[in-house]
Amino acid sequence: MSNEIHGGRLEQQIAFLVEADRLKNVLRRTLLTDASRRENTAEHSWHLALAAMVLAEYSPVAIDLPRVLRMLIVHDLVEIDAGDTFAYDKEGNATKKDREQRGADRIFGLLPTGMGSDLRGLWEEFEAQRTPDACFANAVDRVGPFLQNTATNGGTWRIYKLSREEVLVRMDPVRTALPAVWPKVLNAIDEYYPARGSA
Amino acid sequence: MSNEIHGGRLEQQIAFLVEADRLKNVLRRTLLTDASRRENTAEHSWHLALAAMVLAEYSPVAIDLPRVLRMLIVHDLVEIDAGDTFAYDKEGNATKKDREQRGADRIFGLLPTGMGSDLRGLWEEFEAQRTPDACFANAVDRVGPFLQNTATNGGTWRIYKLSREEVLVRMDPVRTALPAVWPKVLNAIDEYYPARGSA
Repeated sequence: MSNEIHGGRLEQQIAFLVEADRLKNVLRRTLLTDASRRENTAEHSWHLALAAMVLAEYSPVAIDLPRVLRMLIVHDLVEIDAGDTFAYDKEGNATKKDREQRGADRIFGLLPTGMGSDLRGLWEEFEAQRTPDACFANAVDRVGPFLQNTATNGGTWRIYKLSREEVLVRMDPVRTALPAVWPKVLNAIDEYYPARGSA
Repeated sequence: MSNEIHGGRLEQQIAFLVEADRLKNVLRRTLLTDASRRENTAEHSWHLALAAMVLAEYSPVAIDLPRVLRMLIVHDLVEIDAGDTFAYDKEGNATKKDREQRGADRIFGLLPTGMGSDLRGLWEEFEAQRTPDACFANAVDRVGPFLQNTATNGGTWRIYKLSREEVLVRMDPVRTALPAVWPKVLNAIDEYYPARGSA
């Protein structure tokens, strides 16, 4: 009997991992640094985890890096169902919360109960943006695409004709959670916008 | 002066993160579960980190999951220079070690010294396969592609006409480091090979 339960547990976990593979086909707007294509959410999540490891030392408040890594690894899983909602898409963002909650119900629901609620808890904490770990993870989630945009002549800023103000608001989490990185962000925004007369 | 040093450090870290983005364009042989395309090494690394979180409970020996996650996140970075060497490619594997060492010199060398040697240490530990963390990470590195192969009618086993024996040798790390998962692997191999008369 305990073997049977154990087998069911492992099968749920495997079904979840097979389903998670689909995140590799969820496309974001951000381009790769070589501008060859749009990135997908799975590879984006990997790059953020790496960035968190490299930039953790700049957090002005104590963070739990292992928790941040687990948070970043699961923070976009709901996009398998909800898709990536472009940060500057007002209509999409109006329905994002509902779509993502339904995705979370289904995707974390594939896992055994305790494990599913643990991972969903990390996702909810990321979304709520109330803890140092979540704020740091969110700032890292801004830095990755920022590096890709600066490497591709503005990237999504250019393609979607974003205003300087829109970009400043979007990047603001870096100012508070990664203040040492903020001057780099601000310099890049200043360099990009005056040249195009949209400042 | 301390600001100057600090700035240099952050610039090195940013240069490393920009370079790391290139891992998204390193193609592996393994197909996605929907068989739509070959996967890249960045998204593969993400999927392994997730799998390590989900399967850690099955390690028969104590492992340090946060270390395993950091190890998996960096374990394939050298492929930016060395490319992915297909597990069953004899010629490629003869030169793999040299190519990857040179890749490690350059890529981890982009980081500030202490951080670069820390991350390189994780990669070397993974390669050496002598610690529980490295053996568990390696078993997870077998399970991901295994799930993708079973979802794609044999995947690389079929495309590259691998023998049952080759697959058994390749999957063997699962038998020792994830024994609870091994029966699933063996069943899938048994199901795939008799049907094609190549057992």
